[in-house]
Amino acid sequence: MTPSWIDSMLTARIYDLEQPRFAGMPIHPAHRPGYFYALHRRHRDTFLPNQHGPRSSASGALTMMEHSGTHLDALCHQANELRLFGGLPVDNEETPAGFKHLGVETVPPLVSRGVLLDVCGHKGQSVLPAKYGITADDLTSCARTQGVEVPPGRVLLVRTGYGALWCGEEQVYLDAAGVSKSGTLWAAERGVIAVGADNMAWDVPGERDPDTGATLFGHLHLLTEKGIYILENLNLEDLARDRCWQFAFLAAPLKFRGATGSPLRPLALV
Amino acid sequence: MTPSWIDSMLTARIYDLEQPRFAGMPIHPAHRPGYFYALHRRHRDTFLPNQHGPRSSASGALTMMEHSGTHLDALCHQANELRLFGGLPVDNEETPAGFKHLGVETVPPLVSRGVLLDVCGHKGQSVLPAKYGITADDLTSCARTQGVEVPPGRVLLVRTGYGALWCGEEQVYLDAAGVSKSGTLWAAERGVIAVGADNMAWDVPGERDPDTGATLFGHLHLLTEKGIYILENLNLEDLARDRCWQFAFLAAPLKFRGATGSPLRPLALV
Amino acid sequence: MTPSWIDSMLTARIYDLEQPRFAGMPIHPAHRPGYFYALHRRHRDTFLPNQHGPRSSASGALTMMEHSGTHLDALCHQANELRLFGGLPVDNEETPAGFKHLGVETVPPLVSRGVLLDVCGHKGQSVLPAKYGITADDLTSCARTQGVEVPPGRVLLVRTGYGALWCGEEQVYLDAAGVSKSGTLWAAERGVIAVGADNMAWDVPGERDPDTGATLFGHLHLLTEKGIYILENLNLEDLARDRCWQFAFLAAPLKFRGATGSPLRPLALV
Amino acid sequence: MTPSWIDSMLTARIYDLEQPRFAGMPIHPAHRPGYFYALHRRHRDTFLPNQHGPRSSASGALTMMEHSGTHLDALCHQANELRLFGGLPVDNEETPAGFKHLGVETVPPLVSRGVLLDVCGHKGQSVLPAKYGITADDLTSCARTQGVEVPPGRVLLVRTGYGALWCGEEQVYLDAAGVSKSGTLWAAERGVIAVGADNMAWDVPGERDPDTGATLFGHLHLLTEKGIYILENLNLEDLARDRCWQFAFLAAPLKFRGATGSPLRPLALV
Repeated sequence: MTPSWIDSMLTARIYDLEQPRFAGMPIHPAHRPGYFYALHRRHRDTFLPNQHGPRSSASGALTMMEHSGTHLDALCHQANELRLFGGLPVDNEETPAGFKHLGVETVPPLVSRGVLLDVCGHKGQSVLPAKYGITADDLTSCARTQGVEVPPGRVLLVRTGYGALWCGEEQVYLDAAGVSKSGTLWAAERGVIAVGADNMAWDVPGERDPDTGATLFGHLHLLTEKGIYILENLNLEDLARDRCWQFAFLAAPLKFRGATGSPLRPLALV
Repeated sequence: MTPSWIDSMLTARIYDLEQPRFAGMPIHPAHRPGYFYALHRRHRDTFLPNQHGPRSSASGALTMMEHSGTHLDALCHQANELRLFGGLPVDNEETPAGFKHLGVETVPPLVSRGVLLDVCGHKGQSVLPAKYGITADDLTSCARTQGVEVPPGRVLLVRTGYGALWCGEEQVYLDAAGVSKSGTLWAAERGVIAVGADNMAWDVPGERDPDTGATLFGHLHLLTEKGIYILENLNLEDLARDRCWQFAFLAAPLKFRGATGSPLRPLALV
Repeated sequence: MTPSWIDSMLTARIYDLEQPRFAGMPIHPAHRPGYFYALHRRHRDTFLPNQHGPRSSASGALTMMEHSGTHLDALCHQANELRLFGGLPVDNEETPAGFKHLGVETVPPLVSRGVLLDVCGHKGQSVLPAKYGITADDLTSCARTQGVEVPPGRVLLVRTGYGALWCGEEQVYLDAAGVSKSGTLWAAERGVIAVGADNMAWDVPGERDPDTGATLFGHLHLLTEKGIYILENLNLEDLARDRCWQFAFLAAPLKFRGATGSPLRPLALV
Repeated sequence: MTPSWIDSMLTARIYDLEQPRFAGMPIHPAHRPGYFYALHRRHRDTFLPNQHGPRSSASGALTMMEHSGTHLDALCHQANELRLFGGLPVDNEETPAGFKHLGVETVPPLVSRGVLLDVCGHKGQSVLPAKYGITADDLTSCARTQGVEVPPGRVLLVRTGYGALWCGEEQVYLDAAGVSKSGTLWAAERGVIAVGADNMAWDVPGERDPDTGATLFGHLHLLTEKGIYILENLNLEDLARDRCWQFAFLAAPLKFRGATGSPLRPLALV
């Protein structure tokens, strides 16, 4: 009665693209203090047999920036000359509790096809050089070698190799390679619905667009002009190891009303 | 090259089972203060053309209990006579930063088939009476009428109708109908991997197991004895409206290391 | 060698004017979620004899609004036509981390004389009627009966009686009596350096200045025009019981850089 | 009518012994993430002339450990063989919301005489060597040179010189000099009611009591055996500059129910 594709999906191999979350994981300086979990109620606290029988309960409290760990950037996260995607002036949109429009609660579940371009592997490296800028040529060449294309509607994932360093020195991770302006334009021209990388910010840390002076050109172009979401801090190691370049991509950002992003746990299924 | 079932999946209808998240949404008294989002950096704060060109960035900070909004309970959330699932004594497992084992980071992505039993609709009501306890007979009768079965490995969702009241009076929502002991046993016997409902706690508020004196019998039985996850505060209204009883079920709790639960955005695809 | 007044001070009777702080204490709706303390590290967590010998340590985490509990309002807390005290336009002053000027870190320690006007007692009531507005006449009459004056430089405390209801029903406390416009003007004309009351907001809840339409006239007038600090949620019960109308007043707001207020524990010494 | 000593107090010179509080100030590793303030409501958000007239309001949210910045340690902060001061077993005392006894809300306002021993200045240094342990002999010799005694009931402050480095490199501050075991015993024998220093922890970082193996011997001895409070992260620079060795000491920890410490703003008056 239910569709037969579900049976196939149930036998698919699942790749978990989320990095683990813990106090001490790398955090972008703009998003400190980042992440903190405190176990609050413990089992002995609530073990009251007269009240609850043999049952007890434990729980905790999270303090976290919405841009901590593996996450998605909502469109309202960035502005261009103080206008959001679609031209909305920021001054009309900001409230203490978040944005009136384009908050992360407006992002649909991402249920699509995904493509991985393993630029790091393509170049025969275990990790790209610090602050290396992945160019359009890198992406073209990598796609050709892998034998894949990036048609419209895809989620495009790019591997720098820094995902393997998530639990290491924070500064090394913060200085990761990223996607340069030409690489971002290449992705946008292909009509992808989202891009992602295994680094802190998709973009190359510190790179500046010579035309506008913008830092984080990808953030500016993708979020404010193209309406393309950005996924950050992905773990692409297993996909790369298995040379899995194409897959079903599933990710569902949480609907924090008005927030500028959301942690998520993206999955690739093959 | 990629599996053909993905094409079918891409044309599926997607049901979003997550309730919106906002300060003021219903919170279980044990999990106050619940949820708070503060927009922190605003666009004008970071609009510094000399430094960043035309680009500016906004972001915020979340304070939230892991059991706020639509969420999944990890196995360590409950204990039975101070032992977790598998018999682990709680005293060895708790740390300030969370549990050593059975934390929510150990929950695999839920990629499975799901079944909805719309008990509320089956009884011809828009919402079940406050604190009504859904019995095994209710579930059997509902399944028969709907023409569905609940084989092992499924995610079983039960509708009380209270999901429609998420944005209303908190106390009304807290006093929702739930699944009684017999209903929980019925579900567990079927070998489901997770259960969920459109109320705060799956269980009937205030109900007590006559045998052990336990409150929240479902929490006790499912999490500590059966290893079955519980999903809470689901929105099942659209599924019920469309009489969509069987579907692909997708949900991916975040890997908060050591935490006792995680917010998530479950999806049903048909 | 050290001044002899200190000896006298050491024998003074000390009145503690701070209300206790706990989750569930009354919070102004604008300052929710208000206050939350989670014990985080517990002694057994850090009891590691090989590492620390017999010593262990416990500590917790606070989430709180700076306007929770007994606290002082800094001048930047209020604006008049979008200008702070001294005419500073708000747009130049706000940053994600707080105000550039007039933050609570600029408030000097309050070491002065204080005067209590027990309007509630003067009227022979245990608590003033809900939302009663204390007028200039009330203050004049109360001061005359008590035989006190309010010269420049004093801290003026006004008792409504609601301090006794701190641990009771939140809504009753939120609907407390307060100081009306004429009462605020009376205080300001006397050149006091700070005012305070045993209610949530000094002002009368809901009262509107007929001239400007301003709510919370006292906040507007005292903080943005006069540079007079406001103390809220004081406990004045013991002072009143002992008919202690004049005293040394000591209070030291914390220097949270850029914040709009600070919790404090004011003392009266006689 | 009011005591004449108050007039003298009002003309006293006030020394502010609190360090400024800001994100990025030094935090003990055990108390991370430490301190965070987010401006939340801004003036334009609440500037609604139809509702509030010309008045607007701004406020923020604090996330902080109670042991951040200048603060006092409550007795429950430490345990000795899992017993608190007075022999209370920790297991009976801990709750999710804090300690049942000996929480910081039980600390009386500190209104007393204080003595500063400027060991750093006494040794002719601008700052003591990293991890230098101040001995009983150092304190005796310093007191003799300064011509002061430390009678019972005093608050004893010891200067290492590291208070001047509060806004500098965190690691330098964390490696400050401190008071060694013999220095702690010297202080305790004198019957002081509280001790304090211009470093993170009073004690010498890393020092171990040869008898019990305890780290932070001062914490263990003073809090669990003697009931003497500890003040940390003081700013003693101005007192030392003015060679002000004796003074009235005033400090009032906040009454966070059940918490293990409190930020405060201590004052010295002469």
